[in-house]
Amino acid sequence: MIGAGRSSSSLLTYLLTKSSSEKLHITIADLNLELAKSIVQNHENCSFLVLDIFNETDRKKAIKNADIVVSMLPAHLHLNVAKDCLAFEKNMVTASYISNDMNLLNDEVVKKGLIFMNEIGLDPGIDHMSAMKVIDSIRDKGGKMLLFESFTGGLVAPECDDNLWNYKFTWNPRNVVLAGQGGAAKFLQEGTYKYIPYHKLFRRTEILNIEGYGKFEGYANRDSLKYKSVYGLDNILTLYRGTIRRVGYSRAWNIFVQLGMTDDSYTIEDSEHMSYRDFTNSFLAYNPFDSVELKLRSYLKIDQDDVVWEKLEEIDIFNKTKKVELKNATPAQILEKILKDSWTLKENDKDMIVMQHLFGYELNEKKEQIKSSMVCLGENQTYTAMAKTVGLPVAIATLKILNSEITTPGVQLPINKEVYNPILKELEENGIIFKEEKVPYLGYNPENVNG
Amino acid sequence: MIGAGRSSSSLLTYLLTKSSSEKLHITIADLNLELAKSIVQNHENCSFLVLDIFNETDRKKAIKNADIVVSMLPAHLHLNVAKDCLAFEKNMVTASYISNDMNLLNDEVVKKGLIFMNEIGLDPGIDHMSAMKVIDSIRDKGGKMLLFESFTGGLVAPECDDNLWNYKFTWNPRNVVLAGQGGAAKFLQEGTYKYIPYHKLFRRTEILNIEGYGKFEGYANRDSLKYKSVYGLDNILTLYRGTIRRVGYSRAWNIFVQLGMTDDSYTIEDSEHMSYRDFTNSFLAYNPFDSVELKLRSYLKIDQDDVVWEKLEEIDIFNKTKKVELKNATPAQILEKILKDSWTLKENDKDMIVMQHLFGYELNEKKEQIKSSMVCLGENQTYTAMAKTVGLPVAIATLKILNSEITTPGVQLPINKEVYNPILKELEENGIIFKEEKVPYLGYNPENVNG
Repeated sequence: MIGAGRSSSSLLTYLLTKSSSEKLHITIADLNLELAKSIVQNHENCSFLVLDIFNETDRKKAIKNADIVVSMLPAHLHLNVAKDCLAFEKNMVTASYISNDMNLLNDEVVKKGLIFMNEIGLDPGIDHMSAMKVIDSIRDKGGKMLLFESFTGGLVAPECDDNLWNYKFTWNPRNVVLAGQGGAAKFLQEGTYKYIPYHKLFRRTEILNIEGYGKFEGYANRDSLKYKSVYGLDNILTLYRGTIRRVGYSRAWNIFVQLGMTDDSYTIEDSEHMSYRDFTNSFLAYNPFDSVELKLRSYLKIDQDDVVWEKLEEIDIFNKTKKVELKNATPAQILEKILKDSWTLKENDKDMIVMQHLFGYELNEKKEQIKSSMVCLGENQTYTAMAKTVGLPVAIATLKILNSEITTPGVQLPINKEVYNPILKELEENGIIFKEEKVPYLGYNPENVNG
Repeated sequence: MIGAGRSSSSLLTYLLTKSSSEKLHITIADLNLELAKSIVQNHENCSFLVLDIFNETDRKKAIKNADIVVSMLPAHLHLNVAKDCLAFEKNMVTASYISNDMNLLNDEVVKKGLIFMNEIGLDPGIDHMSAMKVIDSIRDKGGKMLLFESFTGGLVAPECDDNLWNYKFTWNPRNVVLAGQGGAAKFLQEGTYKYIPYHKLFRRTEILNIEGYGKFEGYANRDSLKYKSVYGLDNILTLYRGTIRRVGYSRAWNIFVQLGMTDDSYTIEDSEHMSYRDFTNSFLAYNPFDSVELKLRSYLKIDQDDVVWEKLEEIDIFNKTKKVELKNATPAQILEKILKDSWTLKENDKDMIVMQHLFGYELNEKKEQIKSSMVCLGENQTYTAMAKTVGLPVAIATLKILNSEITTPGVQLPINKEVYNPILKELEENGIIFKEEKVPYLGYNPENVNG
């Protein structure tokens, strides 16, 4: 296992628990082994290796000594590991999106009969597997897919959900601040392509219901069409992928977007010495007679009694004394710092992963719909829901490849029955359970008018 | 003269009118000489040269034969011409912004005693000269600059202003559609840096009054601080540069921005076969029961009787039969096409250039303000206001360099008295006149409260 970051706890625990019966030895290789050592403590079937992955000799040696390599490195660092795996004929597992460079290795990987399994974490990962299971079962019955919507979110567990945004940072805060940027969101609704520019993204949410957990909202991912062909949905009418938040989050987040606070493309003058209030004021027109508060209310037309206002006050963006203390910072970097003050998990806080798919289809001339939902709660700040949902599928897949239960070679993602069936089954045994229910068909265009 | 495009009419006519008395011979070099020939007809002091500027031999030969070179090529093509001018020790004039590469030639240009005069069209050009004249006169009296705001716009002449937008394309339509994109607008107000994201740019306009022409509005240019040091305004409190439109234009244009129609970063699926209505609908949520009109009104909260609605109807974005007919087009390309249907100048339409500066300063412990305004009207579609205001300063500078009235060497822009005084004087004789008036000091922060 190369790279032992925040999502390695459940992964390691799963493999070490099975290590005696399965005769496994795990070598954990990273420059910083502190976190891994704190999880594993001492274990007879585990050893640690200080490894600089840019040191070619050491990296090659470590890979040569392994039977299978799990790379939990940041996505852009997988390629050298993959090339070494190819050279020494080792199977490989990652939780990252398949890059173009990785894809180019496919022919050689197949030729050597190797398995490079990717996108087998949470999202991507569990989303692929849980979706393909239902899609394949609909197709196997002769059904025709009409609609697929899929939402995932990393949130705070209900019992620790104690701020007005119903949100805390359970993963990389920078990604949360930059979410949705870099182009219009694109999706399909009843056969029509739809485009939402970034500055409208958080005003075009959809509402979800998850039994036992109440209402959520979802905003569109940038490219909902990415897996259209991969899932075999080329003729589908509605295809939408989104990110889950608690209801009301997006409307409040939109304030930051409208002000320009999420921009990461330029630096603010003298950001270091600004107060949080100065930062807010830099996006408002100059007026010597009005307060920053009044200018903001008036600019974005926020009513006096709008709950969104309390959300802004809660995160302290009008504070005159708190300083930004970041040199040459972009608006996004400053906003991230401000939000970290309020949204960092407390010691006993737990996280929660929520996923929901909607499948609309036609079977025997009847339109039907299936809703499939999964909620996973973190146990503490080591065995988080994120670590479980990312790490467990990686660990399960790794063992199944080692044991030749998964055998199809190639650079791949987990969309085949051979892969997703046994893994989903074992995830269930570990508490990651999808609840499926039939709901009335809610496709968008029953009378085929306008559009 | 290399490059004979739309702004060459007044330039050529000026030089040819003086050609006998000043003993000038003008060689017009371009791949396409049609436009130039239609302007010049036959003139004993003018010859034509078919020149591909990428043909090095021909280009060098042409430059070697000249006494001074006027390059009216697109900005990114000046550099090779400049290098040849340096090699053959020829002076050079352009109306374009000084590129970094051009600036790097400065030492050699100075060493050889050459003059490479740039940014001597309208904007950049007349704006520099007319601003520096007032700024220098304030400083010469011992005044201290507090505020500088500067606005320029290319519009349609009042007599031909017959659409609801009070706007037609008098220059490159693509630049109009993309205006303001590529980063936040940045400026200084009373010592505070202010930032406006693109999606708010057209809602943060300032109002201008120009005597005899009524009200206009200005939206902020991307970088108002660009000439802060060049103009010697390092300690100024307010610095703002903007683009002029007729009042109400920006609020209506904002509808396109909000919808995402000005985005040039991705292509629309099957754009070729879309109607204008389909295009509009692609930015609105799917709903089979509501019309595109109602969806748009509701999405952007446009009242039934809002004049902005008539502006949208006027440009036909709800038309079901007009087709986009552009393959793999970006939203911006499609919007440009739609607007060209409505905003192309008719045969007898004339254009208008409007410029206004505001100068706030402190002199003898009193705060004062000067407003300086210029309006130039086109005569027809050959001698447009744009051609006059871009071409005349280039022509005048060229002759003054030839006649050694401008002598300071270097890669430069027209901010020195030696340059701007005689040129502004001659522009006046050609009807390009700035009217200066003292107005009450309108600086932003008399009581120094809040901010």
